[in-house]
Amino acid sequence: MTPTSPPADVTLSDVLAAQTILAGKLHRTPIIGSATLTGLVGAPLHLKLENWQKTGSFKPRGALTKIARLTPDERRRGLITASAGNHAQALAWAAAAEGVACTVVMPETAPAAKLAATRGYGARIVLEPTTMTVISRAQALAEEHGYTFVPPFDDPAIVAGHGTTGLEIVEDLPAVGTVVVAVGGGGLISGVALAVKASRPDVRVIGVEPVGAPAMWESRRAGHAVRLPGVKTIADGLAAPFAGELNYRLVERYVDDLVVVTDEDIKAAMVLLLERVKILAEPGGAAALAALLTGVARPVADRPVVAIISGGNIDVARLSQLLG
Amino acid sequence: MTPTSPPADVTLSDVLAAQTILAGKLHRTPIIGSATLTGLVGAPLHLKLENWQKTGSFKPRGALTKIARLTPDERRRGLITASAGNHAQALAWAAAAEGVACTVVMPETAPAAKLAATRGYGARIVLEPTTMTVISRAQALAEEHGYTFVPPFDDPAIVAGHGTTGLEIVEDLPAVGTVVVAVGGGGLISGVALAVKASRPDVRVIGVEPVGAPAMWESRRAGHAVRLPGVKTIADGLAAPFAGELNYRLVERYVDDLVVVTDEDIKAAMVLLLERVKILAEPGGAAALAALLTGVARPVADRPVVAIISGGNIDVARLSQLLG
Repeated sequence: MTPTSPPADVTLSDVLAAQTILAGKLHRTPIIGSATLTGLVGAPLHLKLENWQKTGSFKPRGALTKIARLTPDERRRGLITASAGNHAQALAWAAAAEGVACTVVMPETAPAAKLAATRGYGARIVLEPTTMTVISRAQALAEEHGYTFVPPFDDPAIVAGHGTTGLEIVEDLPAVGTVVVAVGGGGLISGVALAVKASRPDVRVIGVEPVGAPAMWESRRAGHAVRLPGVKTIADGLAAPFAGELNYRLVERYVDDLVVVTDEDIKAAMVLLLERVKILAEPGGAAALAALLTGVARPVADRPVVAIISGGNIDVARLSQLLG
Repeated sequence: MTPTSPPADVTLSDVLAAQTILAGKLHRTPIIGSATLTGLVGAPLHLKLENWQKTGSFKPRGALTKIARLTPDERRRGLITASAGNHAQALAWAAAAEGVACTVVMPETAPAAKLAATRGYGARIVLEPTTMTVISRAQALAEEHGYTFVPPFDDPAIVAGHGTTGLEIVEDLPAVGTVVVAVGGGGLISGVALAVKASRPDVRVIGVEPVGAPAMWESRRAGHAVRLPGVKTIADGLAAPFAGELNYRLVERYVDDLVVVTDEDIKAAMVLLLERVKILAEPGGAAALAALLTGVARPVADRPVVAIISGGNIDVARLSQLLG
């Protein structure tokens, strides 16, 4: 960083500190090569299997890092979040693992399986009629009871934790030329891009959004983090209607390209992962690979490219419906 | 072996020789632990991922071993087999890798995807109207052209090659107490049981058949290898209508228990593998796990149990139909 750069909200040393926090508590997920898919991509393809991470996605990396930074008083009072997805499950799991109480506000419309999973990890569930009110309800409960509200992506500790995914990539595959990462609100990509670029500026980092939820792409065009009028994608994990402020700033600083893929591209990548690699990704977890398969993400030639398979949480009923 | 034992058709030294033949040509597939599934099984559960083997099943282990034992003249004349499944794909791939011509006789009723995959590996395809005539046609072509007919399981080289799966288990997980293996005609289990028991007699080996295709179980009852009047199971990879002679003899000598599972048990295991382990198994590839989940396979207490996930070749259309 040059002396004229503005101070960064999150730095490589935060990610390194997170790596120490997470050691022994989470999986160092494998990076596997795929000879079959390499022929379809134009560079040696590797997959970072965060669908094999505890709770089935990368999300506990940020959640545990956040919990490690709480004061004793905050720990005693407990956590709250609003989510129907991987963030809620990861926070519930991490809180239980660390002996901290956790409340999750979910919409009554959430699938029963997601409620059961989150409750199964030990969280207290509060139901709201729709997704429209879950965040305001969570914030009200946080104020009333002194809970710490844990946002899904717009938080320095969350970003630092997720960034450990990027550190593992450059450590385990030093020859890497390109890292491709799916983008929802920007939690994963902001951490990964920071970790990768701060240690290895020669590596290209590409972000991938569903064409029906391009919050970061619209933010880059607008020059500031924007809220979308609506989102429509099969990739529920990437359907954030806005980009995080912190995440946007880090993406602007560190991410080379932002590209979009269609739901059909995502489905085709899921099918290929299942049939050729025997791996289950949720739709959002297959988006990075989809961008490589369609050619919209262009890897650095002749060097390995890593697509992060960011999650695998999809029940077979929905899988069957998607693929049928 | 005591001096009064009859000579074995295949011995541990054959499996060790096969291991040397296969080194560097095939994956040493990983053995992964699953904390989630361990709670459902009653012993520390590990999965040997042969669905990640080249061509998507354990079958190239035997195919490459068979090819390595051919005379120069046999190599020049080429190979033939009759199969619509994993054996054909593996033999086609192995033959191409070793520069040997390969013909596969398939029924016209085989799924287009299986034909395409086998042809894609470089085999010449000969179609017959039904499965009833594929073997006789293959044998007739072998006689006419001097091809070597490669049976799917009843062959010492095939058994020795498949047995390397068992060697890897005892080498990579020395604490193993139990190995659970699916049974079709008996190719995999005869090799694995020989390899495991000859080197580690304290390890329990359990074979698992679909209740609708229990050729080995019926053979054990009858005291000789039997042919079933018919088979009916979703596990096409295990739907052999008879047990191999050689395979039966080795199973009698080395396998502790033979158990059966229903198609519903197999489906439930497939779903659990997908939802909890994010791994795709074909029905036959999930049968060993199914036997542990239902409790019909009883692992040695307090020691790791390995279920071999023997294959992952199922297209998503059929998967969607099975799970829907």
